[in-house]
Amino acid sequence: MHTLQQLQEIVALALSNESFSGQPKELYQPIQYIMQMGGKRLRPTLALMAGEMYQCELEKIIRPALALEIFHNFTLVHDDIMDAAPIRRGKETIYKKWNTNIAILSGDTMFAVAYNYLTDIPPHHLPAALKVFNQTAIEVCEGQQYDLNFEDRSDVTIPEYLNMIRLKTAVLLAASLKIGAILADAPAAEADLLYRFGEDIGMAFQLKDDLLDAFGDESVFGKKTGGDIVTNKKTFLNLKALDLAEGNDRDRLNHYFSSTTFDPQEKVAAVLDIYKKLKIKEATEDLMDKYYQSAMSILDQIDVPQERKTLLKSFADKLQDRVH
Amino acid sequence: MHTLQQLQEIVALALSNESFSGQPKELYQPIQYIMQMGGKRLRPTLALMAGEMYQCELEKIIRPALALEIFHNFTLVHDDIMDAAPIRRGKETIYKKWNTNIAILSGDTMFAVAYNYLTDIPPHHLPAALKVFNQTAIEVCEGQQYDLNFEDRSDVTIPEYLNMIRLKTAVLLAASLKIGAILADAPAAEADLLYRFGEDIGMAFQLKDDLLDAFGDESVFGKKTGGDIVTNKKTFLNLKALDLAEGNDRDRLNHYFSSTTFDPQEKVAAVLDIYKKLKIKEATEDLMDKYYQSAMSILDQIDVPQERKTLLKSFADKLQDRVH
Repeated sequence: MHTLQQLQEIVALALSNESFSGQPKELYQPIQYIMQMGGKRLRPTLALMAGEMYQCELEKIIRPALALEIFHNFTLVHDDIMDAAPIRRGKETIYKKWNTNIAILSGDTMFAVAYNYLTDIPPHHLPAALKVFNQTAIEVCEGQQYDLNFEDRSDVTIPEYLNMIRLKTAVLLAASLKIGAILADAPAAEADLLYRFGEDIGMAFQLKDDLLDAFGDESVFGKKTGGDIVTNKKTFLNLKALDLAEGNDRDRLNHYFSSTTFDPQEKVAAVLDIYKKLKIKEATEDLMDKYYQSAMSILDQIDVPQERKTLLKSFADKLQDRVH
Repeated sequence: MHTLQQLQEIVALALSNESFSGQPKELYQPIQYIMQMGGKRLRPTLALMAGEMYQCELEKIIRPALALEIFHNFTLVHDDIMDAAPIRRGKETIYKKWNTNIAILSGDTMFAVAYNYLTDIPPHHLPAALKVFNQTAIEVCEGQQYDLNFEDRSDVTIPEYLNMIRLKTAVLLAASLKIGAILADAPAAEADLLYRFGEDIGMAFQLKDDLLDAFGDESVFGKKTGGDIVTNKKTFLNLKALDLAEGNDRDRLNHYFSSTTFDPQEKVAAVLDIYKKLKIKEATEDLMDKYYQSAMSILDQIDVPQERKTLLKSFADKLQDRVH
């Protein structure tokens, strides 16, 4: 068994051995650019973790695992266009550094390249792996569309929000585990359990991200906090606060969330004040904990020796601890 | 054996039985919109034609054949954004009718949906079919990028142009035949011959399209001719004319092709005059004929009874005759 860090290093090494160069260079340079940008490589690492649970040799999983990372990066390239996001991981986004057309087309190419990393899957596993991958790709698009829709709506409900982050974020983490399990010859029912475990962990992961944006330590979080508040982004925090607030607090929240013309610092401070009063951090952590507990009970149902579950368990624990 | 028209009807019927609906509707309505827009359904029809050559039941091929059509329509959705094209098949394009974000994302979804139509391919054929599909998808993106690059270049050569249309158009027609052949258990070498046949036919097909844009009968062609001339689009005609023109003709062509501020009618008439003088129509037809002859000699090498080749042959003949 490897450690989480060792698995991440295996992924990083495998990625560094891949070439994303080609002609025309206008198409491939952006692909190299984003694939070398780094990141936690969470999705391929999860695929390897699932493989290790079933004592599978990692070389059987590494290429499909990279497909997940390439697909994830493709979604970032297109999302950055749609969200008009100029910066990603501290660097200019592709549409900004090159242009929108190049970002559309190099993204499309990455999507096809991702599928190329699935073709070496043994034929008896290929249909199952491909189905999970396709379904997930479709759901990630649906999630992004819901997210775009929410920008123009003022009546988004918490269940709608949770379904959006499930589609946009959780299902790809879930699929990463499931594909790793499929390739490792796990029983189909256990691959499905790992999928559900991944969904729950993914939900907790996104809620944590929402929390960090409001309450994170900027030096640890790595980016400025309060961004979601400034841009009126619908998050669990925002929706929960609107749900709980009454009287004057409610009026002030509606007032702040209806415009982007406020002084950002003043707005963030005022909204955080209300969040604190309404115990939004605690409510978010409670929901994260529900997902965490659900994930743990799913993990319990998987019939492998406890020691082979420790990696996924410690991964989930680490996630649980991120806000300080 | 079916006729070409019967095969097209089989494709149209199969497509009309598919539902592209789903939630969120902002994502799926554009997919339904473009998939119902019609078109010749050339790519799935070619897949069925290849299947019939090897006496394969068409139900084994129809879903992967639809994958080719969905993929093709996905490329149209994204190309229309990049080309800022407001109209397609007489209707508003998706980015124009909805918006760019929806066009990006519903296109991405179509790409994933296309792959979903491949998952029922029997496992022993799936890796081969998937590899052709992926490679083709990547090449189509490369072709589109070359096409975009050419807009800003004044030194595009004829070989570069031919390579661009091979990637952007011909390889998908080729892949359609090859995938049909693979699914019909054709020998691998013959599936490759059909691919090469398709490439040649695809080249002739695109050259014919270039020709029709300049010399077509508007009532038959279905759209206004001269569009490529007005927009200074690099086509075989344009590049060949610049290659052949001397003296005053050369100066006038350079003059006309360096701006879009001319009166369109006057510009089209003037450029067509030079094309006629330089026998550009004949040069294009000669090159089309070379591709046609090459395709025919490839077809000769395929070891099936002549009567099973008649459909592909008559399809190629029909293509050859399109300009009147």
